[in-house]
Amino acid sequence: MRVGLLTSGGDCQSLNATMRGVAKTLYNKVKDVEIIGFLEGYKGLMHEEYKIMKPSDFSGILTEGGTIIGTSRQPFKLMRVIGEDGFNKVEAMKKTYKKLNLDCLVVLGGNGSQKTANLLREEGLNVVSLPKTIDNDLWGTDMTFGFQSAVNIASEAIDCIHTTAASHGRVFIVEVMGHKVGWLTLHAGLASGADIILIPEIPYDINKVVDAIEKRTKEGKRFSILAVAEGAISKEDAKLSKKEYKAKLAARTYPSVSYEIGKQIEEKTGQEIRVTIPGHTQRGGSPCPYDRVLSTRFGAAAAQMIIKKDYGKLVGIKNGEIVGIPLQEVAGKLKTVDPNASIIKEAKAVGISFGD
Amino acid sequence: MRVGLLTSGGDCQSLNATMRGVAKTLYNKVKDVEIIGFLEGYKGLMHEEYKIMKPSDFSGILTEGGTIIGTSRQPFKLMRVIGEDGFNKVEAMKKTYKKLNLDCLVVLGGNGSQKTANLLREEGLNVVSLPKTIDNDLWGTDMTFGFQSAVNIASEAIDCIHTTAASHGRVFIVEVMGHKVGWLTLHAGLASGADIILIPEIPYDINKVVDAIEKRTKEGKRFSILAVAEGAISKEDAKLSKKEYKAKLAARTYPSVSYEIGKQIEEKTGQEIRVTIPGHTQRGGSPCPYDRVLSTRFGAAAAQMIIKKDYGKLVGIKNGEIVGIPLQEVAGKLKTVDPNASIIKEAKAVGISFGD
Amino acid sequence: MRVGLLTSGGDCQSLNATMRGVAKTLYNKVKDVEIIGFLEGYKGLMHEEYKIMKPSDFSGILTEGGTIIGTSRQPFKLMRVIGEDGFNKVEAMKKTYKKLNLDCLVVLGGNGSQKTANLLREEGLNVVSLPKTIDNDLWGTDMTFGFQSAVNIASEAIDCIHTTAASHGRVFIVEVMGHKVGWLTLHAGLASGADIILIPEIPYDINKVVDAIEKRTKEGKRFSILAVAEGAISKEDAKLSKKEYKAKLAARTYPSVSYEIGKQIEEKTGQEIRVTIPGHTQRGGSPCPYDRVLSTRFGAAAAQMIIKKDYGKLVGIKNGEIVGIPLQEVAGKLKTVDPNASIIKEAKAVGISFGD
Amino acid sequence: MRVGLLTSGGDCQSLNATMRGVAKTLYNKVKDVEIIGFLEGYKGLMHEEYKIMKPSDFSGILTEGGTIIGTSRQPFKLMRVIGEDGFNKVEAMKKTYKKLNLDCLVVLGGNGSQKTANLLREEGLNVVSLPKTIDNDLWGTDMTFGFQSAVNIASEAIDCIHTTAASHGRVFIVEVMGHKVGWLTLHAGLASGADIILIPEIPYDINKVVDAIEKRTKEGKRFSILAVAEGAISKEDAKLSKKEYKAKLAARTYPSVSYEIGKQIEEKTGQEIRVTIPGHTQRGGSPCPYDRVLSTRFGAAAAQMIIKKDYGKLVGIKNGEIVGIPLQEVAGKLKTVDPNASIIKEAKAVGISFGD
Repeated sequence: MRVGLLTSGGDCQSLNATMRGVAKTLYNKVKDVEIIGFLEGYKGLMHEEYKIMKPSDFSGILTEGGTIIGTSRQPFKLMRVIGEDGFNKVEAMKKTYKKLNLDCLVVLGGNGSQKTANLLREEGLNVVSLPKTIDNDLWGTDMTFGFQSAVNIASEAIDCIHTTAASHGRVFIVEVMGHKVGWLTLHAGLASGADIILIPEIPYDINKVVDAIEKRTKEGKRFSILAVAEGAISKEDAKLSKKEYKAKLAARTYPSVSYEIGKQIEEKTGQEIRVTIPGHTQRGGSPCPYDRVLSTRFGAAAAQMIIKKDYGKLVGIKNGEIVGIPLQEVAGKLKTVDPNASIIKEAKAVGISFGD
Repeated sequence: MRVGLLTSGGDCQSLNATMRGVAKTLYNKVKDVEIIGFLEGYKGLMHEEYKIMKPSDFSGILTEGGTIIGTSRQPFKLMRVIGEDGFNKVEAMKKTYKKLNLDCLVVLGGNGSQKTANLLREEGLNVVSLPKTIDNDLWGTDMTFGFQSAVNIASEAIDCIHTTAASHGRVFIVEVMGHKVGWLTLHAGLASGADIILIPEIPYDINKVVDAIEKRTKEGKRFSILAVAEGAISKEDAKLSKKEYKAKLAARTYPSVSYEIGKQIEEKTGQEIRVTIPGHTQRGGSPCPYDRVLSTRFGAAAAQMIIKKDYGKLVGIKNGEIVGIPLQEVAGKLKTVDPNASIIKEAKAVGISFGD
Repeated sequence: MRVGLLTSGGDCQSLNATMRGVAKTLYNKVKDVEIIGFLEGYKGLMHEEYKIMKPSDFSGILTEGGTIIGTSRQPFKLMRVIGEDGFNKVEAMKKTYKKLNLDCLVVLGGNGSQKTANLLREEGLNVVSLPKTIDNDLWGTDMTFGFQSAVNIASEAIDCIHTTAASHGRVFIVEVMGHKVGWLTLHAGLASGADIILIPEIPYDINKVVDAIEKRTKEGKRFSILAVAEGAISKEDAKLSKKEYKAKLAARTYPSVSYEIGKQIEEKTGQEIRVTIPGHTQRGGSPCPYDRVLSTRFGAAAAQMIIKKDYGKLVGIKNGEIVGIPLQEVAGKLKTVDPNASIIKEAKAVGISFGD
Repeated sequence: MRVGLLTSGGDCQSLNATMRGVAKTLYNKVKDVEIIGFLEGYKGLMHEEYKIMKPSDFSGILTEGGTIIGTSRQPFKLMRVIGEDGFNKVEAMKKTYKKLNLDCLVVLGGNGSQKTANLLREEGLNVVSLPKTIDNDLWGTDMTFGFQSAVNIASEAIDCIHTTAASHGRVFIVEVMGHKVGWLTLHAGLASGADIILIPEIPYDINKVVDAIEKRTKEGKRFSILAVAEGAISKEDAKLSKKEYKAKLAARTYPSVSYEIGKQIEEKTGQEIRVTIPGHTQRGGSPCPYDRVLSTRFGAAAAQMIIKKDYGKLVGIKNGEIVGIPLQEVAGKLKTVDPNASIIKEAKAVGISFGD
């Protein structure tokens, strides 16, 4: 058996642990198996850049961040674009797949990468994919690997800010990753006792945000912490068309939304605001034990699906059990935070404001 | 409204975070509320030892280990025992409850403490309880608070042992907490790449354990790591009656099962074995972000149940949603690892031996 | 005996541990001692805002970040400025000191705060001060508390970036705190394997920085990490007068030097550059064990100096032994990185470029 | 140039970081250099088991625990013993050295390994050695690599125990590594707020230990933490001859000294005592940033000594500067804690009892 393996899109913490799960199971269960690691994501598949993996390549990587075979972003939209030189990406990938005589291609990726995985499935390739993203926004699975590790890093950053905010009696904004969904900000904010949490799914009213800060001041609390998603959006901006909003973002002189919110709070309250952006640290470093367990389970399940020739699916987890979700159902859908979910109600019950 | 609060049994990492969730929600939602913290668990309720809590007592404790009101072990079996001095524990607790005019008693505890909570419910007290245990063995909830934090500590211990085992080419046993259930050992073992995992639910055959080690040696792997639950049991011992097994344990000259297993492996393989026991560190320290989120949700939900006078239940989580489970259904039941669960199959697929 | 205590300037990780050392020793060695905690630094001393501390206030704070008595920045330059309302800060502080009948004032602070401490000494107050700063730039002591904890946080941030840089094959800049001195950047950069380290004490030539990156590319290394101090400065800018440089900084359209360096590298190499700024997280969170030991020793030594009436000194450490350095020698001096120090030579020996 | 490299004795956290420092500097500074890694310490040198290292072997190992070339304990006393088969270890090592045409041998090791390094020096080999030990007991250097990382792990263990001890109101003993010297216990105890610290250099009187616990109880403190070195010794035992003491240890029915001390405290106070032994976890896991800086400096300095043919020395650090100490001065000496050192006085000042 010959299995191709690639990691695609922004990296995250538990890619290696997941690949180890796939590989250990295949080596363990299949007599003759060769694993081909494509370098730097779909690019490697396109350009026939790969490495024949050895069992020892997968040893000792359970706790290592990053990906041993590299990754790259390859926007789905460009997949079908044929270059000036006539280079057809999809055909190139199919060609490599066939030339190498693969039985299956295993793809670790986020939303865009799942769409490409589905495209390759439609083109007749055998594909099994795995849910990689710190955003936890993949449709069909309760949890993605990378998410909990990112929650830990973002929470630790807010914890650090907590002591400095409390000492100085200041308002601090910590900007958490997440352009379209707020899972990471919501969990990190809850975990580290943020007073205000702003996420894309719940557009905020800046006056409500200011009210929440001033309520704390009145109660004698000298500081406030805001956990703000990269994609937090005001109620007014949420009414704009996609095009108008994009134009507004492009015209923005602030590097990110947190600075804008900070400026508005400063103007309205007279309090000094500080912004901290942990940025790419949120997708780096060693995976946490939770992710290592999840990744090992995901990887083992993916390998077992390959063995059973149960192709065309994303491996996910539902109510604690591993499931396979047809790629056509997953591709192009986003799992967002429901503003009426019980976790939001519980957060509001303890006094957290969402600015709504 | 007057609400009593107590933490009972062995401590764990997220007790304070949970109490904070309860308190913040009550202070936030109920106009006049007073929280009474009973000191050192049920003992405080019995002997009228308590503290009237202030809102500020619950500030800044989200990340703090231990319990701000103390705890003690109070075996359920002794609850109904009337002392030589005629002291009736149950009546004493009821008396305090009534004297203080409580609307509800909130109990954070594990298995034994839930049984006592149910006993008090049967005696007519309004009780809401919360699932505290690093063992994750409470029936009716998918997850207990403390568990993931303990997994982290046990996993880090095994990670540390991993580097030293690999450097010296040795066999190491790490003994993980869990007398009756193996959740903690299973997750910590999976998370840190243990080669062999022994849990109470899957009795082991020492020869199978030795086979697994020797298979690794043959494959050129210079070391092996065993994650062994405190309550790991051999196939022969599993056949003994409860009484016979207790007698055997009592006669044991080894401090714990790991030393016995280690001795047997040494005799059968000639390899030097080292044993490490992280012990009580597994229930101490700061709660991890996962537990802080869970505890905040649990606490908020408990408070909301009190507000709705929805008493007599354990707050739990099922498929990501908070639920209330009637105490009479919970009390006396244990949630154990099913030897045929998919997580066990996935663990075996990646090559982990359970010695069965 | 009556001792005043204040924490001044930007907070850092081991303030509470240090105050605990002072307090535990005083309570332990002096029969009648009262500790007065001034709130929010010198402001509390000025405006008679304080709290009479109890021994229990200092319990359980060894591992807690921040400061239990608050802090504020109070620029030395403004200390002698008399307000429009005639408010004389220095006289106000002296008045509080005398009114409260203090035997000594203990000041935990960085450079500016040490100058103010010296000013108060000149005015006749008994002062003992302690070296608080993540910058490690206090003259007269080998080490300040807070530094090693900040090194840990900055190093962990670079570690996280390392895995993502390696996975994507990118050039990353991590901006580390330090406007005037490079100790923190130097140590964090060394600790986490940065390829290029830019510090204020060694002005950089952007072409040398680019050379170092391109050398790595030629050697087949797909990524590079730059640790850049906030106060990193180019060779040209280092030639400007202080006034000219300030004007240049003020005119800068980039939020910080890292973006400027990143832009230049992008232009010269065509490689995409990412910037990450851990920011205030570097001064927050729990102190590391190294700092807790140092702080406990510092605190104990300060208390012993008070008992011996050995006033007017900064407590420091020299070659592993605690020393007292006369405040007049400390005030206004900065301990910077010597570009010819052996640590720089060792860093260069392993191949790190300083852009010089 | 050809350089041999070996890691000897118990492993510790920063071995790889140190070897990386040596290797990066040699590859960087010497045109033609080949590094030979002997496998499993002196055993590899004896039996000609080695691996020719590549520059890439030293990439990405800065943060990795353990040793990439393995280690083994090889008691110095046995070095000169000629086996029944006539195998002469010293001659075998010399033979390998000459056969491989080495210019120098780099040894990373603790006390015993330094003695062997000195023996090889006496036999005419060029040796440069590096101070590896979590015990910090090497004569001639202020600090060894591994020590600070071990302090961190031991401190975190005591921190965890702290929360559980406080919650339950118990006396806990945490046994810290160190048979002959107490540096690790002293620093970990100070860092984590231990109330009583017992180290080999300060024999204890069990009644003084009990007094210290009871003093705390009287002050209303519900718990006490003891940090006890593996080699802690009572005043009576300290009077025994070496032979008598060995006999006493051999006859002991307790697994370690902590259980004995615990038993005695239980008998004398009636309080329940718990013992926790972090054990081998203390030498495992990732090195802390402090150690990574130290190791990088040590490694760079060792390489520079090789380049200058400055052989026969241990690389150390004195007052912040790297030094070379002649091996004949180092071998066989131990750096112990001076009971009158100022750090001990400072520890006593904050109220810590050493049981003396």
